Parts: sequence; structure tokens; C-alpha cells
Amino acid sequence: MLTPPQALPRKSFGSDNHAGAHPAVLAALGAASQGDVTAYGDDPWTERVVSQLIGQFGASGAYFVFNGTAANVLGISLMLRPYESVICAEEAHLNVDECGAAERVLGCKLLTVPSPDGKLTPELVETRLAGRGDEHRSQPRAVALTQATEVGTCYTVAELQRLGDFCHASDLLVYMDGARLANAAAFLGCPLADLAANVDVFSFGGTKNGAVGAEALIVMNPALIADVRFQRKQQMQLASKMRYLSAQFGALLDDQLWLRSAQHANAMARRLADGVTGVPGVALRYPVESNGVFAILDPALIEPLQREWNFYVWDAHEHVVRWMAAFDTSEEDVDAFVAAIRRAAGGLA
Amino acid sequence: MLTPPQALPRKSFGSDNHAGAHPAVLAALGAASQGDVTAYGDDPWTERVVSQLIGQFGASGAYFVFNGTAANVLGISLMLRPYESVICAEEAHLNVDECGAAERVLGCKLLTVPSPDGKLTPELVETRLAGRGDEHRSQPRAVALTQATEVGTCYTVAELQRLGDFCHASDLLVYMDGARLANAAAFLGCPLADLAANVDVFSFGGTKNGAVGAEALIVMNPALIADVRFQRKQQMQLASKMRYLSAQFGALLDDQLWLRSAQHANAMARRLADGVTGVPGVALRYPVESNGVFAILDPALIEPLQREWNFYVWDAHEHVVRWMAAFDTSEEDVDAFVAAIRRAAGGLA
Amino acid sequence: MLTPPQALPRKSFGSDNHAGAHPAVLAALGAASQGDVTAYGDDPWTERVVSQLIGQFGASGAYFVFNGTAANVLGISLMLRPYESVICAEEAHLNVDECGAAERVLGCKLLTVPSPDGKLTPELVETRLAGRGDEHRSQPRAVALTQATEVGTCYTVAELQRLGDFCHASDLLVYMDGARLANAAAFLGCPLADLAANVDVFSFGGTKNGAVGAEALIVMNPALIADVRFQRKQQMQLASKMRYLSAQFGALLDDQLWLRSAQHANAMARRLADGVTGVPGVALRYPVESNGVFAILDPALIEPLQREWNFYVWDAHEHVVRWMAAFDTSEEDVDAFVAAIRRAAGGLA
Amino acid sequence: MLTPPQALPRKSFGSDNHAGAHPAVLAALGAASQGDVTAYGDDPWTERVVSQLIGQFGASGAYFVFNGTAANVLGISLMLRPYESVICAEEAHLNVDECGAAERVLGCKLLTVPSPDGKLTPELVETRLAGRGDEHRSQPRAVALTQATEVGTCYTVAELQRLGDFCHASDLLVYMDGARLANAAAFLGCPLADLAANVDVFSFGGTKNGAVGAEALIVMNPALIADVRFQRKQQMQLASKMRYLSAQFGALLDDQLWLRSAQHANAMARRLADGVTGVPGVALRYPVESNGVFAILDPALIEPLQREWNFYVWDAHEHVVRWMAAFDTSEEDVDAFVAAIRRAAGGLA
Repeated sequence: MLTPPQALPRKSFGSDNHAGAHPAVLAALGAASQGDVTAYGDDPWTERVVSQLIGQFGASGAYFVFNGTAANVLGISLMLRPYESVICAEEAHLNVDECGAAERVLGCKLLTVPSPDGKLTPELVETRLAGRGDEHRSQPRAVALTQATEVGTCYTVAELQRLGDFCHASDLLVYMDGARLANAAAFLGCPLADLAANVDVFSFGGTKNGAVGAEALIVMNPALIADVRFQRKQQMQLASKMRYLSAQFGALLDDQLWLRSAQHANAMARRLADGVTGVPGVALRYPVESNGVFAILDPALIEPLQREWNFYVWDAHEHVVRWMAAFDTSEEDVDAFVAAIRRAAGGLA
Repeated sequence: MLTPPQALPRKSFGSDNHAGAHPAVLAALGAASQGDVTAYGDDPWTERVVSQLIGQFGASGAYFVFNGTAANVLGISLMLRPYESVICAEEAHLNVDECGAAERVLGCKLLTVPSPDGKLTPELVETRLAGRGDEHRSQPRAVALTQATEVGTCYTVAELQRLGDFCHASDLLVYMDGARLANAAAFLGCPLADLAANVDVFSFGGTKNGAVGAEALIVMNPALIADVRFQRKQQMQLASKMRYLSAQFGALLDDQLWLRSAQHANAMARRLADGVTGVPGVALRYPVESNGVFAILDPALIEPLQREWNFYVWDAHEHVVRWMAAFDTSEEDVDAFVAAIRRAAGGLA
Repeated sequence: MLTPPQALPRKSFGSDNHAGAHPAVLAALGAASQGDVTAYGDDPWTERVVSQLIGQFGASGAYFVFNGTAANVLGISLMLRPYESVICAEEAHLNVDECGAAERVLGCKLLTVPSPDGKLTPELVETRLAGRGDEHRSQPRAVALTQATEVGTCYTVAELQRLGDFCHASDLLVYMDGARLANAAAFLGCPLADLAANVDVFSFGGTKNGAVGAEALIVMNPALIADVRFQRKQQMQLASKMRYLSAQFGALLDDQLWLRSAQHANAMARRLADGVTGVPGVALRYPVESNGVFAILDPALIEPLQREWNFYVWDAHEHVVRWMAAFDTSEEDVDAFVAAIRRAAGGLA
Repeated sequence: MLTPPQALPRKSFGSDNHAGAHPAVLAALGAASQGDVTAYGDDPWTERVVSQLIGQFGASGAYFVFNGTAANVLGISLMLRPYESVICAEEAHLNVDECGAAERVLGCKLLTVPSPDGKLTPELVETRLAGRGDEHRSQPRAVALTQATEVGTCYTVAELQRLGDFCHASDLLVYMDGARLANAAAFLGCPLADLAANVDVFSFGGTKNGAVGAEALIVMNPALIADVRFQRKQQMQLASKMRYLSAQFGALLDDQLWLRSAQHANAMARRLADGVTGVPGVALRYPVESNGVFAILDPALIEPLQREWNFYVWDAHEHVVRWMAAFDTSEEDVDAFVAAIRRAAGGLA
């Protein structure tokens, strides 16, 4: 038996994917290993979990892929011809953190718009609609939003509806990057289906919420479903032993583990935000509406804290740091981190 | 706890990825779940297993990806500009079974050559070298071979060396699809490094050999390493919780589990081939040199056998079927299947 | 005024694009230079000539592009999603002579089929239809034929109809590379519209028939027209001073110059073929049905003839040479060339 | 002989490509039509003109393409791998007016930066250099500037040098879109070679300066030349009758027609700008440094003027219009247009 190498010495606040997998997910992998099944998704685990997802969202189809970048690219590939473009926030993962995957695989243009809080609005989308019908311009055809956003904020159901209505009235399809959709659902306290009601295609992330590595692409709009299977294969996202992706989602759906984990991670972020409120040299940058805390730190605090604790500088220019909580972040982890921040801040001035 | 749904009623001979994962692989996933680690491969599991792979092959780098199609596309992406082409056997997985992923992601042309036994030779490669320097032609720049081949045959080390020498002398880089490299190594009885000696980049498959889902891309040629990380990310193959891919390979490398599993699967294919030798209506189509048996069946046998046993028709025209053994195929499984074939054949004429 | 540099000393039989432009085409460029017009095709020359082309073919739309490769790629781009493939003859210009443009720009796969005479048949197409619906396979969606073919043969109207009917019944769209469509029309003696009746999209070549450089893409199938303008621009084929492409076609259409030029070129090829019939060491390789003569030459003849005359070896292995006639090849040119061939052949042992 | 259809009733100020071709260019097409030459650039016209261009710029190579979009895409294709990006002004033709050709053909990302006057500076470029070495980010590798810019301004030679030095010191290659390079050279009064001194690859536009349709791609950096021919062909930009592109440039280079035409067009823009200076309701938006005048018009003036004169609204929000002069714009044309503007402005309250 292999000796595991050394993990990080303290709970990481660097990312929700610094956590391992939930024990129930690992157990599901073991359970799914019993016996032979056919490959590529033609297996009873996949059949069952796909049915559950379709039922939960009232969807036209559900498909597993390996990671969030792939879900975004595959999802948008269902919507665009290469001369069409997708409107997204400048800060969107799709634009900033995917190494240009959309441009390469889809050949499309991203039309970006600066967003004050990570969210798009009809007004922001409208600024990128010039030149429709003009053959010199890449044609806007889809809008990609992120729920919860990259800065931890959430669209309300009313905001989603207003944006979705505007898009559909403007002949724009809506894609939602739901890498942290569970956290948004937990914050909003609404059924998952409400989050999907105004969207054509979206991802439902598992990895950041306790999976080993699995994301679901959910297709609501039945007109977009015809070629998903081919696109997924060609985009190198078809798992041969699909049951292992399905089983991860099976575990997350079972007894709403996905929701309980997201609620817990959100609560830990809330606890952390509350713990640093009023601490000198620390100010919240965005409302805490999911499992991340974005704070403006006195620059003198950042490096000393990073020596002991794992977290990232989000914006070096504005001294914004990001602290993420995960399904397995404990109250003790948060409290120890808060204490460390308070200690460091006490040394200021 | 979830109740697992129903698996196949009998051991499948349909594919080596109809099997589940090896218990040691599953245990490694559990062991890797201890504590937090940073994401995207900057973790101690990945560091350790990558070092082992590099050491084992004398490689320049090793990188994990999600599946075999991705390994092929990523590997070849290191070699080609879009106006360059890759020469491969007409029957290659790259050409036939990847939904045109190479063409789409790389924009390149595949120059195919019919191969009598799945293998390329210098003579076959040479038939596709016309038009070099002519701007109207896509320029041959790489050769992609498969070891073990899609029809279960293996290149000998001498064949690999002869082909590699020819390619390199002809200004062609060599990529090797090693989805079943373990089976080839087991058959040839040579060190893995001998299989990699004449190759620039290759994949080393885990999934078909007991992993949950993981392939390693091994880069031998140091000139090709500079952009792997970017290409992998852009090709949507960067796992955030990378430790779970690494841990799978850690388990396979530990005590040479990869080799023992491949030896066993090969032995089961051998046992199956031996068991049907001399049975009327059954003739081997290709030499059995790895874990697959390709047999020409009397057409009257195929459907009755498929009603009880899972396997695929490889070539409907020539009545060739494919029977694959896996790491967990037992002697009893083989013997039962042989008995069934013999029974069915007994009913002929 | 510039002194023109030295042209070739003798009429070239190397290619129909070794010829210059027809004087009427040059005159049309001058005529089109009068006054200002708006750019990108919104001009009266383009309006007039596009109308003529649409009327002539009963088409849904007509679009000018710069060269034949572009016409092929643009035409096929109207038909395919990236996971779909186009079936064509192995020898097709699209496959052999376009440096992989289709693969790069469209991301698609070409499914090639060897053809004895450059032509496709339903039977040949059918050999590439395996795997439809299987997500591992690129999905056949279009057939690309060439009229006249690369080896100078022509589909009869009946053959086109049979092939087109088969394709449409098989859910395949039909693209026709008509770089030498004029020569085919001249040979068949039928209206252009008859050639287009069973085709969804095709090119109608001007360059090889006396233009400076212009090809028309004709879209018959109205369902394929929506995005041509965007695809053309994105594929870098939108001329700003479009009137100069339109005017070339205007000249070709005027008094059927296109037909008279093609008839003449065909007649010169016929005269050449007749002139070498019976000459020892010379045998026709393909029927002469357009403006090219493909002949098997005694290898001893090739190099001496090439020292004085410009032509290409088509197939070095089989000693096939290609002799092309152009709109301005004269009877004297042909007779001098025939005499040279006869002289050279007379020297054979 | 064809009757030409109706041109615009008045000289257009809409675009420099609303003009026809210069008579010397048309004459060169006629001269180049004498006799046969080999195709695809292996002809004496191309040899001569390419030599001239190489000599004039001290370049490594010169290549003709059909239009400006193609020159940009081909030029940048020499510099980038698909995971690399090009930094350009938000307003760049490459970003706004090419229908996403770069994204589709190159698969790359454009990193845009707002520019106050159409020009890039080291400081602006630096804002897009974050994330180098981070595999999640598309990697900045090239900078694309436009000379003269889209708003008619020119980089001074010193500005070009400073930007070029910064880029090269920052491991960035420099591409220059020179669709109107002639106008910049005329404005700056410097040798063409000075404009190219700090650039790796650039285009030298012919179309907007009196050609029928031809652009030259000039490669200065010898390390970037190896694959131009293949890239050009694959990008569908290889003319078979290349002599006709070469001859156009031959005419432009002869007796510096390119410079005289650009000087004239610039002078006409200057005359127009001077003519409207001080007119109420008219204010220049950018300095007039080439052949375009960008003016803020009282919105009440725009529509009435457009009823008689052809020009475009550049920015509807800020009421900016663009007036372009061409090689054949006459003083009378300008004066009549100025008079019309003054008349219209006189009618303002």
C-alpha cells in the first residue's frame, strides 16, 4: 500500500478545489465498481443519474464532462456558428481562466463587458449588440453568465428572469456557468429548477462541491440537444468508464448532499466574513453570497498571512484577496484563520 | 447509501473498459483524499508520480489527461503546425474512433495508409511522403503508431527502432498511442523504456488497465515540452483536483500493478484463443499478442452468442468479432465463454 | 510605363491558369473603373451579375470569392458542423491540393474514397457511410464531387442525377467543385442549369476560363443561404472593391464568352489527343472530356519534351503526364506540340 | 461590349475603397497579360516586384494576398501558437471589422485595450501582460498596431521605435496593419523602411491606394518566414494567376505612384479639414494625419448631408462621422463637399 505524501499543514482557503472528495463520493466510486457495464454512458448508473438530473431541472438532457472549462466550451458549442460571438463579463472564467479554449475550439469571439459585481444585466448586454447583420462583425448570439459569479455574488431569481427575458427577446441564447451553482442555490434558498428556468444550457458543478472531478452539462432548450453527444466526443470529453462520473453525481444528489455541502461552505464563508468585520486593515470587497470572501487587505497583512495560510491575491493592484470555504471547512478552521487575521491586523500601525 | 443498479449478468468480453477499477486504484483515491493540497498538479501526489514516470521512461515530462482521445490530440498538438499532417494507419483510433477531434482541435490533416496488421512500416509511411515542400500539400510532419495496435498486434522493439529511425531520418516526429502500452510491454517482456526509445511523445494508458479514468502523456523529446501545460489547459484536459489522476497512476506503478494486470489480461486472451483453436466455424484473424482476440466467426454463430455474451462485431463484412480480456477477467470467465462458443459451434451443420 | 518581363517562350500546356486573362475581361475591369461605387458588393456591377447568375442557374444566391480553394471551403462550410465530414474522391483537389484548408478552417474530416476515373458513384459513397449515429465517428453529411474532374472526365447529367438522388435520399448534401464547370458544360452540350439541378452548392470557376482571378459560389438550396455573407467575410474572401470580381464574371457571361472559351479549350484538347493517337510511346490514360489530356508517356520521352514545353507529370509512378489547353491555345500551338511529341517519339528505339 | 451600370452621382467620401483603380494599375494588368507564365507566383512579374519590395524595406520576404483581413490573419499566424494571444487596440480592424477571422482561423484570443487615439503605447500594452506563464491564461505573444490608425492618426517614427523596443524587450513580436501605410509614410515624410524598422511583420496595403485588390505581407524577421507559403495557401490566399497581384504592386511602386497617390489623398483630407474649420456644428475629433477626417457633427447636420453625399457615421453615440479622401478625390470634389457642409451648417438655428 502506498504511503500518501504530505498534504498542506492547514485547511486551505485558497480554493474550494484544494479540498479532497466527500467520503460519500468516494464510497459511490467503490459501489459503482461492482461488475461490468458497457462503456461511454450506456450503463445503469448513468441512466439513473441522468434521469434524476433531467427530472430535477425539467431539462431536455444531461451530460457529464471532466471539468468546468469543458462544460463551458461544450455548452456554448451547442449555440454558436464560428462567426457568432458570446457576450460575457470581462472577469468571466470563460474569458480569463480558460487559456483561450473557447476561441480555439469554437473559433468564436468573446464580446466582453466590464461588470461592477461580476453580474451581467440587460443594459450591459445591450452595449455589445452593435453591428448585428453587418458581415464585418462577429454576430452576438449567446450570453454567458456565471452563477455564483467569480466574485461570489449571486443573481437573484428575478435578475435571472429579467436577463433571460431580455436575451430571448433579443434573439440571444443564454448559457450559465454553474461551477458553483450549488452555492448559489444554497444562498438563494430556491429550487434548482428556478435557477434554470430562463437559461438554455448550463453547467452544474460537482468538483468544487465535493466530487473527485465531474461536471454536468444540462440542456434545457430542446432545440440544442441534437449534437451534444458528437460535440462532447469531439471535444475529448467522453469518458469511457462513464459510470464513475455518474456515480459521483449520484452521491451528490443522494439526500441532497450537494445542497448540504454548499450550505455548509456558504456558512463557513459567512462566518469568516463576520469574523473579520471591523478588523482594521480588512474590508469586504463584494457581498458574501456564496462560499467565497473577497476582502481588501492592508498590503502589509498579505504576505505575513500567506506564510501560514493558503489563499490567493485576486487583484494585486487593489489588494483584494480571495478566501474560499469548502464542504469540509470546519468552524475551527475558520476561527483559527480569523484569529490569525486579527493577530496580524493587531500588529498594524 | 445508494443501492447500485444492476451490472451486466456475465463478464463482458466487449471491451477492457467494461471492467470497473482495480481495488488498489480505488484505495489510492481514498488515500489521496487526506487533507488539502493545491490544485492543477502542484501537489505532492502528482510530483511523486510524475517523477516515477519520468524516471521509468527516461522522459522529459509526464502529464495526466482524462482519456485516450485527449492524449492523442494533445500529444500530436506538440508536433504540428496546422498545415502539417500526421501519417497513421487507416484503422487507427485517431482516424476512426475520435469523431474527428484531431482535425477540429489541431486543424490538421490525417494522411492514412491501409495496414495489413494494424502496424506501420517505413515502406508504408513512405507512400505518404509525396509533395513535401509543395505549398499545395499539407506537409507530413509526424507519424502516429499504436502499441498494441487496434487489432491486438504488437510492434517488436526492433520494428519500433526501424520505424523510428526511418522517421527521424525523414524529418518526421513519432507519436505512439499507448492506450494498451502495458499489454504490449507484457507481451514483449521488455522494459517500458525500450518501448519509448524511438518515440518523441506517447501515451501510457491507465483506463483500460484498471484505472477509473486516467491516461499519461509522456514527452521524450525535450524540444517538444515547452508548451504542453498551455496546450493541455486549452484542450480542456487540466484536472483541478489533479491528485486523483496522479493517485490512480501511483497505484498502477506501485509494485508494477500495471504489468501484473496486463500480463493477466494477456494470459486470459491467450487462454481464450487457445480454447477456440480448432473449433469449427472459428478462426483467429490476427495473432494474439495482447489482451484481444480477433476471430472470424461463422455468421450463424454471432447472434446467438451475443444474446448471452457481450462482445462486438469488428468487421461485419468479414465476420470478424473482437473479444477483449481485462485485468479482472478470470479463468472461469474464459472457460465459460469458451464452452459457450464450443456449444454454439457444435450446433453448426 | 513598366516594361513587362519575359513570359514563357512557348504556349504552356502546363495549366489553364498559365494563360493570361481574356481581353474582354480586361476591358470589363476598365469599364468597371468608372466612378465611385460602394464597397463589399453593394454596387450596381455586382447586383447585375449576381442577378444574371441566379437567373441562369435558378439559384438562391451567388457570391464571388478569390480562388477555387476558397470556394470549396466556403461552400462546404455552409453544410457542416465540425463533427461532420465530407465524402470526396481521394484525388479531389479539396483533399490533395488545398494544403488542408478544409480541415483547418472547418475543423472537419474528409472521408476519401479511391475513384477509378475521378468520379464518385452512389456505390462509392456508400462505402463511407458506416458509423452514422455513432458518436465516436465523424458523421458523413456532405459529398463533394468535381465537374469536370481532376482527370478531365465529366459526369453525365444522368450520373449527376443518380448521385444527387442517392445523396439526398441518404441525408447527404451535395457540393460540386466547378473550377472547370464551363468545360463540362461545353462537353455535355447541356444548359448550365442542368448541371446544377441535383446539387446544393457549387462553384463556377472563372479563373481557369479567362478571368484574372474570380470564382462564383452558387447556392441552390435555400436552407443553406443564411450565413454565407458572414462565412465569406470570416474566411477572408470578401473583396472590398467587389465590382472587379463581378465585372470579370460580367464579361464571361456576356454573349456566353464562358461557353465559347470553354468550347475552344476543349476542342484544342481534343485536337491534341487526336494528334497523338497512334504515336508509339503515347497512350491516353483517361477519356478526353474537357480541356485536359492525360497520357501515359514512355518515360524516355518525358524529360526531353519538358525541356522545350511546359507540362506536368501527373503520376510519376505510372508515367502519366497532363496537358492542359486554355481559352487562348491556338491550333498552331497544338500542332507544334503534336509535332514535337511525334518527333520525340520517332527517336524511340 | 457591356454597358457599365450607374456609379454614384458624386465623389464618395465614404471610403477610400469606393474609388476605382488607378489607370496605371489597370494598364499594368493589361501589360501582365502578355503570354503565358507559370502559376502561383513562379513568374517574372512576381519575381521582380517581390524583389523590389524586399529591397525597399530590407525585408526577409514579401507575399501578396487578396485583402487586408487576410494580410492581418496571415501575418499574425506566423507569430502565434493557438494558446497565445495578440494585444491590440479595442478599435482595431482586426478586432472589430473582420468578423472574428483571427479567432476562427488562428484559434487565438485578442487581448484588447482601449486607446484614446487609436495608438498603442508601452504603457497600454503592459496592462495586458498579466498572467504570463500561468497555464490558465492565453499567453500574450504579439502586439498588433495599425499605421495609419483606424481614426487617421499616425505613429511617429520615434513612437514606433519606443513601442517596438518595449515589445521586443518584453518577448512580444510586433505586427503592423498597414492597410494605409502609404498614407502614414506620406504624412511622416520618411522612407518606408523607417516605418518597418521596429516591426516583425506588416502589411502594405494596395487596395485603398488605387489597386484593384492586392495587399502585400512583408516579413522583416527572418525567423518567421519558414512557413508563410504554406500558411498562405491553407488560408486560401494563394492566387493562381499571381502575376495580376504582382503587377498591381508593380504599378504602385513604379515612379512611387503609391507615394504620390497617398500624398494627394492626404492633401485632400487636409483641404477638407481646413475647409470645415470654424464652421459651426463641426469639430474635428482626431488630428488629421492621413487621408481621413473624423468630425463631430451637430446631429441635425448628419442626415441632410448624407442624402446628397456618401459618408459613414463612425460613432453614433458621439455623432462622429468619417470622411475619407482617395487617390482620385479632386480639389473640386472637396470644395463642393465643403460648400455643402457650410450650407447645411448655415441652416442651424
